[in-house]
This record gives sequence, structure tokens and C-alpha cells, in this order.
Amino acid sequence: MAFEVRYTDLAARIGRLSTPHGEVETPAFVPVVHPVRQTISPQFLKEKMGFTLVITNAYITLKHYGDEARKRGIHDIIGFDGSVMTDSGGYQVLEYGSVEVEPAAMAQFEKDIKSDIPIPLDKPTGYGLPYGQAKEYVRITLENCKQTLEVVGNDTDAVWVGPVQGAEHFDLVEHSAQALDGMGFQFMALGSPVELMEAYEFATLARMIARAKKVIPAKPVHLFGAGHPLTIPLAIALGCDTFDSASYMLYAKDGRYMHANGTARIEELAYLPCQCPICSSYTLKELRDVPRDQRMIEVAKHNLHVLKAEVDMTKQAIMDGRLWEYVMQKARAHPKLMEAVQLFGDSEFDFVAGGTPLFKEKAIFFFDPVDQHRPEARRFRQAVSQFTTAKKKLVVFPEGEVHPFYATRGFKALAKKFPDAQIATYNPYLGIIPAEISDVFPASHNLTPRAERRTSDYQPFVESLQKFAARFDEVIIVADGFMKQAVEEARLKARVEDYSDHVIDRL
Amino acid sequence: MAFEVRYTDLAARIGRLSTPHGEVETPAFVPVVHPVRQTISPQFLKEKMGFTLVITNAYITLKHYGDEARKRGIHDIIGFDGSVMTDSGGYQVLEYGSVEVEPAAMAQFEKDIKSDIPIPLDKPTGYGLPYGQAKEYVRITLENCKQTLEVVGNDTDAVWVGPVQGAEHFDLVEHSAQALDGMGFQFMALGSPVELMEAYEFATLARMIARAKKVIPAKPVHLFGAGHPLTIPLAIALGCDTFDSASYMLYAKDGRYMHANGTARIEELAYLPCQCPICSSYTLKELRDVPRDQRMIEVAKHNLHVLKAEVDMTKQAIMDGRLWEYVMQKARAHPKLMEAVQLFGDSEFDFVAGGTPLFKEKAIFFFDPVDQHRPEARRFRQAVSQFTTAKKKLVVFPEGEVHPFYATRGFKALAKKFPDAQIATYNPYLGIIPAEISDVFPASHNLTPRAERRTSDYQPFVESLQKFAARFDEVIIVADGFMKQAVEEARLKARVEDYSDHVIDRL
Ligand SMILES: [Zn+2]
Ligand SMILES: [Zn+2]
Repeated sequence: MAFEVRYTDLAARIGRLSTPHGEVETPAFVPVVHPVRQTISPQFLKEKMGFTLVITNAYITLKHYGDEARKRGIHDIIGFDGSVMTDSGGYQVLEYGSVEVEPAAMAQFEKDIKSDIPIPLDKPTGYGLPYGQAKEYVRITLENCKQTLEVVGNDTDAVWVGPVQGAEHFDLVEHSAQALDGMGFQFMALGSPVELMEAYEFATLARMIARAKKVIPAKPVHLFGAGHPLTIPLAIALGCDTFDSASYMLYAKDGRYMHANGTARIEELAYLPCQCPICSSYTLKELRDVPRDQRMIEVAKHNLHVLKAEVDMTKQAIMDGRLWEYVMQKARAHPKLMEAVQLFGDSEFDFVAGGTPLFKEKAIFFFDPVDQHRPEARRFRQAVSQFTTAKKKLVVFPEGEVHPFYATRGFKALAKKFPDAQIATYNPYLGIIPAEISDVFPASHNLTPRAERRTSDYQPFVESLQKFAARFDEVIIVADGFMKQAVEEARLKARVEDYSDHVIDRL
Repeated sequence: MAFEVRYTDLAARIGRLSTPHGEVETPAFVPVVHPVRQTISPQFLKEKMGFTLVITNAYITLKHYGDEARKRGIHDIIGFDGSVMTDSGGYQVLEYGSVEVEPAAMAQFEKDIKSDIPIPLDKPTGYGLPYGQAKEYVRITLENCKQTLEVVGNDTDAVWVGPVQGAEHFDLVEHSAQALDGMGFQFMALGSPVELMEAYEFATLARMIARAKKVIPAKPVHLFGAGHPLTIPLAIALGCDTFDSASYMLYAKDGRYMHANGTARIEELAYLPCQCPICSSYTLKELRDVPRDQRMIEVAKHNLHVLKAEVDMTKQAIMDGRLWEYVMQKARAHPKLMEAVQLFGDSEFDFVAGGTPLFKEKAIFFFDPVDQHRPEARRFRQAVSQFTTAKKKLVVFPEGEVHPFYATRGFKALAKKFPDAQIATYNPYLGIIPAEISDVFPASHNLTPRAERRTSDYQPFVESLQKFAARFDEVIIVADGFMKQAVEEARLKARVEDYSDHVIDRL
């Protein structure tokens, strides 16, 4: 199997996954397709909506079609000429308590039906399982995977998936991912308990993903059951490449209409706040009057459009270098999502910095205190901490509208007046900016709204100032209100002047 | 004319504007239609896209069609059976420096062609005009309006518009709005300088709108030239009901593709991050290969879909009582938009509170310090400041997951232990919450993410605590970290205890 990464931002990546039935551009939403009863034909999903990968259930296929499936193959059974992922029935194990097939037999069946991306028979941990039992489930899943690999052998083009279990027991997640990685699986799938999703416990989900990514940073990762518009940007930013869900249909059956910020019951809607081909061809009243079964299909198609739009907007954000902005904006759809993205500032999420490019074409935006933790800002402060100078005097001057700072009139006047001084400017999100590196990304490539800020929310700034100033014998600071607070808080010995038109003459 | 308001949130309203050619649901985007050269037929706009009101240029109509227009009427000329607004040519005055018609003649012409919503010949102030000159333009516009009204007389069903000028000279805006209101115009239109829009000076735009709304809070308001996805939620939240623009076409001509967070050049796109009927029928590559003229039309249609989606999503947010959340989320599309919405906490924006309902069905979300200024929170603190009790002892206890506070086990245990005490809980965004009113909206109807917060960002909380506690002889506070800071900052004389499982027993 080949997984080619073309572009990254945070831990997200734009990639291409090769399967026997073609390439799949990732990140990708993978619609769940029932092998027997199809309300929306898989070929419609591909031709009209651009889904090149679907997932279906091998266990149900086996029970319903048996040898016929072996003869015809899964693509013919479901009528789809793109890539097909097969879940082995682990979900059914959870649902019904048992499954009549053994791992080896299931592996052989998935091989026989020519699944492009087969999943070994796993034992999902679900949510809320006591630690000992969860550990046992992980052990069984790993054992199943070993047996599966024996059946698979080397004569396969299929992309076999390593199912990572453990749920909220993060050390089990890590152990599970590590073991599967060691067995040589090239594609990992993370179990994401439906209970977490239903309770909007996105923070726990994020920490679970983070723990797995720590040990499998490079390999492609699938996230099970992630079919809510709110989870998609989060999961992508954390490095998940594909995610399946039947939610588009389940929600439709329940009369729930997806939108960018969540879902709404059709009765709650006052408008159809969507421009998809479905919503463009009905008024809300007309849609309500469509007979129940037909309406369910229309809403399911609409839901798929919303999920696809969410993936596409996230991909475009990656290409624009604005994934951080997009994720933080999305977080304002729900407080529980906000709790998850605020973790990005924590050290267990350091891995998200890995994919952020060193330089970006477009200016980055700084809105809120959390933005001081974005990888670009942390890297810049790191660079400043390693900046060396032999000068003994420091002159600090506020940033103007012009970038880079060394091209401003202010800088030029200071350089003339203080030829022996280190001259620097500052930004609440980046800290101190020595003039010499004021054109280094993102010092000249950011937009920061004018706003009142308090240093209590910008401790890395205060530290940056403190450490930088400590290298000099004499410090002169022309300060705005924010800088004055910082000087006080850092207990700096410095001459501080308010900014005014002729301040440089007076220094 | 009738303008019926059906629902409000902030200063926004869902309304119905009656015109001789039918009702227009507001807020509404009003596409600019050229009276002679139409690239997208107005009837398509109505039938396929749901635009029931368009705007066209009366001056060009007069020059091109003359008496023919008088005979056929504007609806026949442009081929549209919905409502038509006519701009009188004020823009051309600005563009070409003069216009050969007089206000009275123009008014008569607009009357003759049966415009539903005619605009008197105004003299747009544009942007950057010296104060004296801007004042003169306002005077001329008002004089024109008077002459127009003489022509109009009483025999009209049309909705004549009062054009408010003044631009960044806010006192002129106020004067202009007041004078037009006095003349009896029932529909106001605000000039919004194209320079402000192009420079993304949304804060200045917001302050201009605020100044006009101060004197004309109830009448419907049109905003000229607001055709950027980012201005729409802001303009609606500030009480603008309709907004016209040719931007969908101008941007398309320039190869610019709109999206929820702004615009992008088609070459910059890596995907078509949109599910509209246009974007659903092409891949990006296919769209790029469409011949230039045809592609321009396709992009223009797509742009209209984006603008319409933005209006619909804003309308749905109003109906959901989540307009504040939506506007604050949208603000994270651009730092300049953030600067504008942060003004909502300022006293000159107090008028936005007017439309916020006293009770909402759905929980409101508190994300950021700015949210403590939302009308619901301010009203609640106001209610608490008027809350009376004869009790002399105050016991304050942290909020749990259960709402209302008086239904919690914590409250019940406290009530038993301290039968003579006033018991209260607290929330960073709402301040102190006396148990008796802990079910009053939004004390039990909010979701607040778990997060570290600093009292320096929540001064209204500290004040609320200080004032409330001052009424008691004895104060006992079971405090989280945030409350401890607040107690210190408020210099309260209080017994403070950390929260723990048996803290109530130990009190
Ligand atoms: Zn739709
Ligand atoms: Zn589109």
C-alpha cells in the first residue's frame, strides 16, 4: 500500500491512499453502505457526490450472501466500482454479544470478496468498560489480528487495517497502537465509542486520538463512527485521514438535518439554511410535505452534502494554511468542542505542531489567547530565545501597521539614534521581535485585531520579554498599555516611555 | 407600507416588507440587476434561487429606454414579477461627477416605471470627504428628498426610501437619519462607502450603522453595497434588513469565488468547498476549463448561493436564539471583523440588546470574555442587583452540572444546614446567582466550557460578587480557583473553603 502525503497543517494531511480499486484522496468521509438494503445507491455516492471510498459490513455480507459473495466479490454485491472498506462485524459483537465466525475465517472471507481495505475481526471496547475487561478486549483484538495476518500472508494488494481499541483507557490505546504497528499494519483504525460522540465528549475523543498518534504519527489513520459535522475538522486536525459513519442515514431516519454547526430536527427549522442540490430544489414546506420514506432519502443526501462540505472546507483550510483558524472558529459551534480544541495548547498535543509548515503564503490570524500557542508562534518565540547579539543596550518600540518592522520609519529613526543598540518590536502572540528577524515568518505575516489585552492572558509574552531583556545592561521601552503591564509584571529594570509622535527625539 | 416584525434577536429581525409586487421576507440579500445587459435573468433569480426583491438603476433605465420604460414599467423592462427597488443614479453622480436629471424629474420617472421601492436622487458622501463637504452632500440629499416627496404626494403604494448619508462623519449620519425620519420616510437606506468595505473596515461600518439605528430603531433599514459574506451577519445583527450588491457579478468577473469566510481567486482553490448546484455539477478542474464568459456566469451564480446561504444561516441563528454565537463565530473569519464585533460590549451598541428575547428555548453558549457582555448576561446581573433578601448570612457554592442550582444535592444540604442563610451559586459570565432565581433564564440555560479563567477578564463578575456580598454580615464561600481570585480581588471579608466531597459537613 502507498500513502502519499502531499500537504500538511497541524497534524492534518492531504494525502492519497492507493487501493486495488483506485486512489482515495484523504481526508475523506467514508459513507457506511448496507450490503443488502441500500437506500442510496453506492454508485450514486461516487458519481454524483464524489465519494470514492465506502465501507460495508463483511459479517452481514457473509450471513446474507455466503458463497455468492465469494463468487461475485463485494464490489459487485454492493454495485460500486470504487474502493471498498469492510468492517468485519466487530460492531455486531458489541451489539449482539457474539459472532459466529472466527478471526481466520472472517479474514479469509474478506480476502475472498476482494475487499480493498479489510478490517480484522476486532472486539470494540465501547465506553465505560472496567479497565481489566477493556484490557482483555484489547488482548483479544490483537490476538485476532495475529491470526488474521497468518491468513493474509504476503499475496495481498489489499490494505489491511489494524484496529486500535482501548477507548478512554488511554494507556491501552497506546499499547494497542504500538502492538499493531509492530505487526506491520500500514493503516490504523481508531475505535471511537458512540457514547463519547453522543455525549459530545470531544475532549476525551481528542485525547484518545492524541495518544494513538503519539505512537503512530506517520501511518494513515481511520476514525470509526465519526459522522458528526463537529467532529470532522477536529479529527482531521489531529491527524485522522478517513472516518466512516452511518450517521447521515440514521439522523435522516430520525428526522435530523445536519448543518455546519450541528443538527436540527426538521420541525425546528425555519429555513433550509443550505444550498445543496436537495435544499435548492425544495422550499422547507415542500420538503416537509414529501412522503416520509422519500423525505428520509432526501435528508440523508443533504446530510452527506453537509459532511462532504465539511471535509472540503477543512481541506481548503489546510491548503490555505488556515487550519488552526478554521478549527478554532468551528469550536464556537459548541462548548464541548471548545473544551477539546483548548487542549491544543497542552504538551500532550505537541504532536499537532509537526505538520505545520515553516512558512505560509497567507498571513495567519491571531484572535484569542489560545492563539499564542499555535505552532507558528511557539516556533517564533523559540527562534528569538536562540537569537544572539553582542549589543548591550536594548530599545523596544511598538509594532506599526507596516511590516516588516525594519522597514518602518520608526525603526530607521531608532537605528540612527542608537547605532549600538539592539532594536526590537513586539506582538502579544509572538513576544519580542528583534528587528533583524522581523521579516521571519510569521512576524510580518500575521493580522492581529486591535483590542485591549491583559498580560495575565499572555504569560509566554511576559517570559519572552523577561528573558530577552535580561541579556542587556540597559533597556529602553516605548510601550503601549499592554507592554506597560508586561514590564511591571516581569519586574524589568527599564526606562519606559509612552508612545507619542516625537517620542524618538526625546529618548 | 407595512413592515411586520415576526422575530428578533440582538438588533436583528425576521420581518415581512409589503410592496406593490408582493411580500419580501427580511433580512434579504437584494441582487443588483443591470436594466439593459443581464447576464443572469432576474426571473431565474426568483424562480431558481428564491430572491423576491432585486435592485436596478433608474438612471440607466431612463437614459436607455426613456419613454418606453414609462410605458412598459420596470418589471417588464427587466423581466421580473417580484419586487423591484430602484436606485436613482446617486452612484453615477459619484462616478461621473454629474447627472443630467433633477430630483423631481427622477422621482416622477421612478413613479412612472412603477418601482416598488424607489430611492430619491441622493448625493453619496463616499469616504474621506472633508467634513464641510460631506455636510453639504447631506444637505443636498435632504433637499432632494423634500422635492421628491412633493412629486410623490399621497397617491403611492410604493415604499419610498430615505437615503441616509454622512459616512464616517457619524454626527452627519445621525442628523441625516433624523431628518429623513421626520419627513416621514418609512424605509431608510444607509450609504456604506465602498472604500470601507474594500479595506475591511468593518468596525467603522458597524459604528456608522449603530449611529443611524440609534435614531431609527424601528423602521426597516437597507444597507447599500453590502455584498461580502463577512458583512452579512454583522449587518443583520446590527438591524439592517436588506442589502444590495453587484459583488456576486463583479467578483465573478474578477475570477473571485466567495466562501463562508471570504473570497478566493479560482486559481488559489484546491477544491470547490461548496455544495451548491453549480459546485456539485463540476469538479474544480472542469470549472476551470469552462469557457471564460460561461465560467463567469457559473461563478456569479455560485456567489449568489453563498450570499443566500449566509442570509439563511443568519436567519436560522435568529430563530434559534443563537445569533450572538453565530456572529462571534463568524468574526473568526477575519481580524477586522473581530474588531467590529468586539464593539458589541460598548455602550454605543446598547441598542443591540433591544431585540434579544427575554427567554430562549435553547441554552446559550458562553465561550469568551466578550460573551459576558451579551444582553442575556447583562440582564441577569441587573436582575441580581435588584434581588432583595432580609437574610444576614450568605453562603456561596460552585455550580454543578445539574440545573437549576436549587435542585442540586449541594443546595439541599446547604439549605438544611443554613436555614437562615441566603444561598447562591455563580458563573463567570453571569456573576452571583441567588438560589431563588437560579431557574431564571439564562442561569439554567447556558453551556459554559470547562476552562481556566482569570478574573482580570471578568470584571463584571467581580463587581457582582462585591455588591452582592456587601449586603450581608457574614459570608461563606466554597470556591473554585476562579472564585478565589475574585474574592481576593474584591477584597471580601469572607470565609473561603476549597470544594471537596464533604465540604458542606465541615462548614
Ligand atoms: Zn442541503
Ligand atoms: Zn458553489
